[in-house]
Amino acid sequence: MYRTHTCGELRLADQEKNVTLCGWIQRSRDLGGMTFIDLRDRYGVTQLVFNMDTDALLCNEARRLGREFVITAEGRVTERSNKNPKMPTGDIEILVSRLNILNTSLTPPFTIEDESDGGDELRMKYRYLDLRRNPLKNNLLLRHQMAYETRSYLNSQRFIEVETPVLIKSTPEGARDFVVPSRVNPGQFYALPQSPQTFKQLLMVAGYDRYMQIVKCFRDEDLRADRQPEFTQIDCEMSFVHQEDILAMFEGLVRHLFQSIKGIAFNEPFPRLTYAEVLEKYGNDKPDLRFGMEFVEMTGKAKGRGFSVLDSAAYIGAIVAPGCSEYSRKQLDELTEFVKKPQVGAKGLIYIRLGTDGTVKSSMDKFYTAEDMLEMAATAGAVPGDLILILAGDRIPTQKALSELRLEMGNRLGLRSKGVFRPLWVVDFPLLEWDGATDRFYAMHHPFTSPKAADIGYLDTDPARIRANAYDCVINGVEVGGGSIRIHEEQLQKKMFKTLGFTDEEAERQFGFLMSAFRYGAPPHGGIAFGFDRLVSLFAGEDSIRDVIAFPKNNAARDVMADCPSEIADEQLKELSIRVQKS
Amino acid sequence: MYRTHTCGELRLADQEKNVTLCGWIQRSRDLGGMTFIDLRDRYGVTQLVFNMDTDALLCNEARRLGREFVITAEGRVTERSNKNPKMPTGDIEILVSRLNILNTSLTPPFTIEDESDGGDELRMKYRYLDLRRNPLKNNLLLRHQMAYETRSYLNSQRFIEVETPVLIKSTPEGARDFVVPSRVNPGQFYALPQSPQTFKQLLMVAGYDRYMQIVKCFRDEDLRADRQPEFTQIDCEMSFVHQEDILAMFEGLVRHLFQSIKGIAFNEPFPRLTYAEVLEKYGNDKPDLRFGMEFVEMTGKAKGRGFSVLDSAAYIGAIVAPGCSEYSRKQLDELTEFVKKPQVGAKGLIYIRLGTDGTVKSSMDKFYTAEDMLEMAATAGAVPGDLILILAGDRIPTQKALSELRLEMGNRLGLRSKGVFRPLWVVDFPLLEWDGATDRFYAMHHPFTSPKAADIGYLDTDPARIRANAYDCVINGVEVGGGSIRIHEEQLQKKMFKTLGFTDEEAERQFGFLMSAFRYGAPPHGGIAFGFDRLVSLFAGEDSIRDVIAFPKNNAARDVMADCPSEIADEQLKELSIRVQKS
Repeated sequence: MYRTHTCGELRLADQEKNVTLCGWIQRSRDLGGMTFIDLRDRYGVTQLVFNMDTDALLCNEARRLGREFVITAEGRVTERSNKNPKMPTGDIEILVSRLNILNTSLTPPFTIEDESDGGDELRMKYRYLDLRRNPLKNNLLLRHQMAYETRSYLNSQRFIEVETPVLIKSTPEGARDFVVPSRVNPGQFYALPQSPQTFKQLLMVAGYDRYMQIVKCFRDEDLRADRQPEFTQIDCEMSFVHQEDILAMFEGLVRHLFQSIKGIAFNEPFPRLTYAEVLEKYGNDKPDLRFGMEFVEMTGKAKGRGFSVLDSAAYIGAIVAPGCSEYSRKQLDELTEFVKKPQVGAKGLIYIRLGTDGTVKSSMDKFYTAEDMLEMAATAGAVPGDLILILAGDRIPTQKALSELRLEMGNRLGLRSKGVFRPLWVVDFPLLEWDGATDRFYAMHHPFTSPKAADIGYLDTDPARIRANAYDCVINGVEVGGGSIRIHEEQLQKKMFKTLGFTDEEAERQFGFLMSAFRYGAPPHGGIAFGFDRLVSLFAGEDSIRDVIAFPKNNAARDVMADCPSEIADEQLKELSIRVQKS
Repeated sequence: MYRTHTCGELRLADQEKNVTLCGWIQRSRDLGGMTFIDLRDRYGVTQLVFNMDTDALLCNEARRLGREFVITAEGRVTERSNKNPKMPTGDIEILVSRLNILNTSLTPPFTIEDESDGGDELRMKYRYLDLRRNPLKNNLLLRHQMAYETRSYLNSQRFIEVETPVLIKSTPEGARDFVVPSRVNPGQFYALPQSPQTFKQLLMVAGYDRYMQIVKCFRDEDLRADRQPEFTQIDCEMSFVHQEDILAMFEGLVRHLFQSIKGIAFNEPFPRLTYAEVLEKYGNDKPDLRFGMEFVEMTGKAKGRGFSVLDSAAYIGAIVAPGCSEYSRKQLDELTEFVKKPQVGAKGLIYIRLGTDGTVKSSMDKFYTAEDMLEMAATAGAVPGDLILILAGDRIPTQKALSELRLEMGNRLGLRSKGVFRPLWVVDFPLLEWDGATDRFYAMHHPFTSPKAADIGYLDTDPARIRANAYDCVINGVEVGGGSIRIHEEQLQKKMFKTLGFTDEEAERQFGFLMSAFRYGAPPHGGIAFGFDRLVSLFAGEDSIRDVIAFPKNNAARDVMADCPSEIADEQLKELSIRVQKS
């Protein structure tokens, strides 16, 4: 070992010890007679002192050390005269007697500080320097801890981690696969898994009972801020369980993570809301429950006074912004602009101000009396001082717009603190979604999800009406996990494929081995997968999963540090029996 | 939950409890009045009893259950009259009162028993059934445990697990890469990592100090029994360490695994042998130390008696097979055939029998007196009753052949028990290997391995002579891990690339980002990677890593269960800007 201690561990109790530290020069201050250096490693920062009077040679050497030089320093631990209570090592400093430069450094292209002066692209290119900054380092340490605690909890529940293959069969259903040409099998390709779905089901057929894996998955999609071509799942499956058992087990996991990592205990069981309920109350299947502001439907109440915007609306919905009755014209205009943005899509915003003095004012004064509006306010549960915001139009798009408005108001009112966590389960998702463009049903979760027993009859008559044994775990408006009880009977699975428009041949070609497995004693089973990157970014209070991934790709799916993807040699292409052909 | 207990947990103490079990029908015996069923799940087997007298209907139902049907059985735990001490649940049985068939099963294509009647290909095709057999199930449980204990130990040593990317830059050095065409970047490709080598070094540059990852790696090689296109490594790296620190840390890991998993404690430190030593003593850089039979060099002693085979040999080596002096002609012929096999490659075998009565007999009686031979025997450390086996020829091939002979004798004498483990470190590997075919040096470990400080001078004068700071962990003749102290200075790394025949441009194009990272304060660092599949198969006593992988590929890199790789749609190829072109 080059060192006796790390830069994070020395305290007053270590006074007079002779120690050797290694690390990077964080900063250095030359005060004439004394030179102070902050030496940094993963574990912390320790102050080094060099004294011109006692060792001029060494002190001069220290003055020449640049930022990010790597050194070894030997010396004596002494009490600081000028203690720094913000640093765990702030009571001591090292009076250095020997110094050794292990490596020099060019001046980094951006500052290695909590708030760096480097732009996004520059920091991506020098990711290994960006990773030295505390925020990223702490995120990766958090990620490690969360993975460790996840395994610890699931191991205690007798889950076994099984590695499933990365080189698998390509299936056209779902998102685009990344593919890998096979040299040994010319003209044939492997795919990278979008999830280990079929393998974990096969493990249940094989009797493994409780499976888990923290596993890389791949999707060749056009990227957004919170998407990466490769991402990580906590992937789990259990046998001989009902939906209730899965929810209980994985509510346990989420509780364990909050407790062990953040010291947060939830006293109540996680709320369970049906898909229908969350759409009605929040216009959103991943509602943010850090604040209320639930939708109040006004469709019945508000019609028939000659206001065509409302009279012609299939849906009228309101939210109550508490204490906002004094919003200025400018603020109301901003909100109107907000709801009219193309991403939100409302045509306009109606408001009712309930003055603290009992007065009522609205953008629809012309059509409604004060009594009408007070009645509406009462329906909405508003009290004097509140502002009622109303959107109207077709049901689904209006609910979506109202959801955006609700979240915006949550932001404006500071109701979405990153330190507060409100988990819930959303249950009873529809089994299928109709797609007009391709004129067929798609599985809302995936084709292996089982219908609710009570709804199976609708498979032949009204498939859109079938509810699934499917559930999402949502925290603060983020869907962190989702899963379902699977189909375990061959006949039902066949029928499901048929409903999804597969011919028998297509089903056989793509999922034949799973169908075949179902013929040999498949147990009832179900599972869940958590988006690990999202879960970590939620815990870290980061908005992008990039900030919790060591070496992420940029929005063009490129690694700008390694400059990849890149061209490969003709010889290599030839060996793989492929040719590049740009269109 | 469908069950109250598993099939592995009920004991006499549970007598009279009403329980519900789930599982698969292992076997069923119809004894007329009684029907017995062994019900199996992951946790064990429990006997179910059905009585014709008390419930004929139920008993008849039970008789109709086929092998591998999945059922739920409810009943009362009772003491067995005919206990089975071989089963943990052998003291009890369940008097079944209710039965529910969860799923039927076709008759499996092979028996689900410890020793199956199914051939390799058949069992691969129905892998989900093969995985039901105890040997495979126990291997996967072992694998889980070993991964868990590895993380547990390394976490306690403050290692942090960091996920490195799977979609990386292709580099021509080393084995063949699997590549992944990028849709978003037409004509460009990602590669799948052969190891996370550069990323873990970047993490050291980033200051992460102690990194670990259990990670999939990929090599597009022609397969052998112990190779798979995807395999798993325990990948580790540390900063501010010397070779000694790495050996101590990971000897600790190996000890922890043996202690926690197998209850085996090693009293002595692992032996450390240099590469030169193991070649001299065992003709092999991964010697099996479960038995001695070290080589004795006879090159000086045995020449000059007119026996041209020896006189013309650059190397004469012997091993002593204890107690084998009475080997029959047939046995000696077998050994001669063995050494003459093309894979072994010797021209012939010379022996000396040391009779228990003091007599000496040899295949070279013509050229040597009994005194000559007794002297040779004394040099070899043989005692009466031993058989001395001698090979002669060019040094390296003869040592290799003698190594094979030594292992063969170890097998014949039962000295290679799977329950005995003899770990060692092999150190001081050469840095470079000369390749006559391509007329250049190759890195024996990899191009980032540092030369021993004492040997750096030879880089300009005699590169073949340089020893590396490289080490292997070997157990029972299997290389389970290997690593090195890395180069952390840009200049030395540049020189190394030059010695390996890279132009500056090639080095820059392939490893520019690593070279660039070395300019910003790279700490001294080093690491190791354990072949996790091999380590698990060693612990499991399996000869092939296939038996410790849930879903392996066959020797043609195919998944015969999913029938993969497979052709993909033209539309998909077009999107990826590639075309298939078989040569």
